[in-house]
Amino acid sequence: MTMRTIDRMKAGFRSFKAAYYDQRPERVAHLVESGQEPEVLLIACSDSRADPAILMNAEPGDMFIVRNVANLIPPYQPDDQYHGTSAALEYGVRDLKVRDVVILGHSGCGGIQALVQGAIGGVTAPDREFIGPWMEIASCCSGHGPDVDAVSRQSVRNSLTNLLTFPFVKSGVESGYLQIHGWWFDMKEGALWRYVEENDRFEKVEG
Amino acid sequence: MTMRTIDRMKAGFRSFKAAYYDQRPERVAHLVESGQEPEVLLIACSDSRADPAILMNAEPGDMFIVRNVANLIPPYQPDDQYHGTSAALEYGVRDLKVRDVVILGHSGCGGIQALVQGAIGGVTAPDREFIGPWMEIASCCSGHGPDVDAVSRQSVRNSLTNLLTFPFVKSGVESGYLQIHGWWFDMKEGALWRYVEENDRFEKVEG
Amino acid sequence: MTMRTIDRMKAGFRSFKAAYYDQRPERVAHLVESGQEPEVLLIACSDSRADPAILMNAEPGDMFIVRNVANLIPPYQPDDQYHGTSAALEYGVRDLKVRDVVILGHSGCGGIQALVQGAIGGVTAPDREFIGPWMEIASCCSGHGPDVDAVSRQSVRNSLTNLLTFPFVKSGVESGYLQIHGWWFDMKEGALWRYVEENDRFEKVEG
Amino acid sequence: MTMRTIDRMKAGFRSFKAAYYDQRPERVAHLVESGQEPEVLLIACSDSRADPAILMNAEPGDMFIVRNVANLIPPYQPDDQYHGTSAALEYGVRDLKVRDVVILGHSGCGGIQALVQGAIGGVTAPDREFIGPWMEIASCCSGHGPDVDAVSRQSVRNSLTNLLTFPFVKSGVESGYLQIHGWWFDMKEGALWRYVEENDRFEKVEG
Repeated sequence: MTMRTIDRMKAGFRSFKAAYYDQRPERVAHLVESGQEPEVLLIACSDSRADPAILMNAEPGDMFIVRNVANLIPPYQPDDQYHGTSAALEYGVRDLKVRDVVILGHSGCGGIQALVQGAIGGVTAPDREFIGPWMEIASCCSGHGPDVDAVSRQSVRNSLTNLLTFPFVKSGVESGYLQIHGWWFDMKEGALWRYVEENDRFEKVEG
Repeated sequence: MTMRTIDRMKAGFRSFKAAYYDQRPERVAHLVESGQEPEVLLIACSDSRADPAILMNAEPGDMFIVRNVANLIPPYQPDDQYHGTSAALEYGVRDLKVRDVVILGHSGCGGIQALVQGAIGGVTAPDREFIGPWMEIASCCSGHGPDVDAVSRQSVRNSLTNLLTFPFVKSGVESGYLQIHGWWFDMKEGALWRYVEENDRFEKVEG
Repeated sequence: MTMRTIDRMKAGFRSFKAAYYDQRPERVAHLVESGQEPEVLLIACSDSRADPAILMNAEPGDMFIVRNVANLIPPYQPDDQYHGTSAALEYGVRDLKVRDVVILGHSGCGGIQALVQGAIGGVTAPDREFIGPWMEIASCCSGHGPDVDAVSRQSVRNSLTNLLTFPFVKSGVESGYLQIHGWWFDMKEGALWRYVEENDRFEKVEG
Repeated sequence: MTMRTIDRMKAGFRSFKAAYYDQRPERVAHLVESGQEPEVLLIACSDSRADPAILMNAEPGDMFIVRNVANLIPPYQPDDQYHGTSAALEYGVRDLKVRDVVILGHSGCGGIQALVQGAIGGVTAPDREFIGPWMEIASCCSGHGPDVDAVSRQSVRNSLTNLLTFPFVKSGVESGYLQIHGWWFDMKEGALWRYVEENDRFEKVEG
């Protein structure tokens, strides 16, 4: 029996609705009435295998989430252009007043792989118009290749650096109100790593 | 007993790891070895109360997800700038070859609310640098205010229009390979609506 | 990759422990400290496909559960013998003071099938020592065969009758404190039925 | 907002139905069509806080489950009486041919507490007709009191002994086809222990 994902999503919504709105309304009532008050802003990859709500067993209200290809934070660059990730960062930190910003990278990232392939001379997808410029954010990391996962971890470091170019992040961190975290999900092993600044390396947290 | 979300996330990861990698490895084994093959690309809001994996009861591999403030699709604009949402759209449609693109709006959206407040003369957060320009994508919809939810639904329509400005989306839709969907989550009622093009309005799907 | 169920159970326990004790301790804290206070006592079949906690999406503390072959309630028969189901009924109603007693039958029941086969002349499993006498509780229902599901529903009715032979159930029902319910799970259709006394038949509740 | 458990159960069923029958029918299809084939028979307490499907994160089809007060196995005693637990044991081992039988005890057991209180001279609930005789199965363990949890663990040992009085269990174990396990759930710590025969004591498995 083969079922299209789009149909499974609708059935999944029925299950969610019954489980929360009908069965345990107290789980969502406050959120609906009082608005969201997440403590955490998380930037994750769009990869379907690294969904943060599934990975962290989250419930509604837990995390304000940005997802883009390769979980990148661009540098602070205020102008009239559309900056989706920066806008979310601004809204999360300044308006929602989250206490933690987490950048969640993962192994086997397709965006990082495209970056690495481009950097080592291969002409990857020459007719692509957006993925190349977007991955430029992490171009400084490609020297850590050809190991895609090493570049991916370096890119998390780089995004942490970019994060601090945003004045409202920097001041939040300096005042101690805000904490920033670099996490990395090893999809193959099912392990979670975190970046430890003191010794400039990733250490296993779980798994 | 009060627990910080960031700590609950780590415990949640242990639960995920035990449930999938240890208990039912068959649920993730293929994904890890063969790479992702999602059928659906979904653009959702960053709002912590409208997490698509929770709403759709998803499992790893189901959906390639973009999340930004107000689930906006900017118009096609290929240049050297960083376009996170466009890059994800390109990667999902052209490289992953998804069959469905879903734009998922929701009620009580903070980004839309900021847009509406700005449009009706209030000077909302004058010192914000990114949220204003970002919400410009939906500026054409603000005339449907002051009802925030009406503007939100109009913005889903607008994003569907923008979606078709991308040549690879347009050709996919025309060839029948790709379908695009505008969905809207009524958080208060726990209901899911979808945009029906024929009669240009939203109809309830579930709830 | 084949994994033994007994090993999946241990991994499942790790997931449960992380999700409740570590991640959301508030979900179990009260139960552990103050003792159980379930509102519902449910009698279900031992069948692995009709687990009431899975079927009802239950959480710890929700239901005091008895499970035996074919979800039978024997008649009131106080003597010095071991009466497991009666003891649980007594403890649930008199000590825990539940407000609802639910008998949950289901389609495709192996115990009922054995009863039906025996009743229509077949000598089912002549060397079995316990299942035959146990199914005698429902022997009055076998005339509704050979349709196993019809006999199963009749047996739920019969157990409701037996339930009222217990003085503490009868008085609870008469005082209005206690309600008794006959439910039936159609495993094939994924539907839930309930017995309606007024018109002496089962009506679909969900599905 | 206070909701009765019986109503939450109905909503929970809708969620189950949507999640399995509608969204992921492959999870139940085989079970419905081919019948159950559980590898494990588990005897657990009726306690609402120690539901084995929740504790082991089970799915339909995983475990054939008996639940009675204090998870007791009576000794082999074939006669014309109703023996619910023995009937389930017979059906599980002889007809379903499970490979593992697990007795799952737990801390803070109300049935064991009643046994201990009775044994130390208190006249517990003199008007109870069934719980006293039923708990007689574990009467030999009450000397391990007044520590309720020590008696509970001793009772798991005792049930393992009783299990081997059933000829079909004994022969199964001797042939190596069947394994029997004594597990104990520490509800306070969220830990799982197992009985190790070689050194006659319980060792922590998880937690």
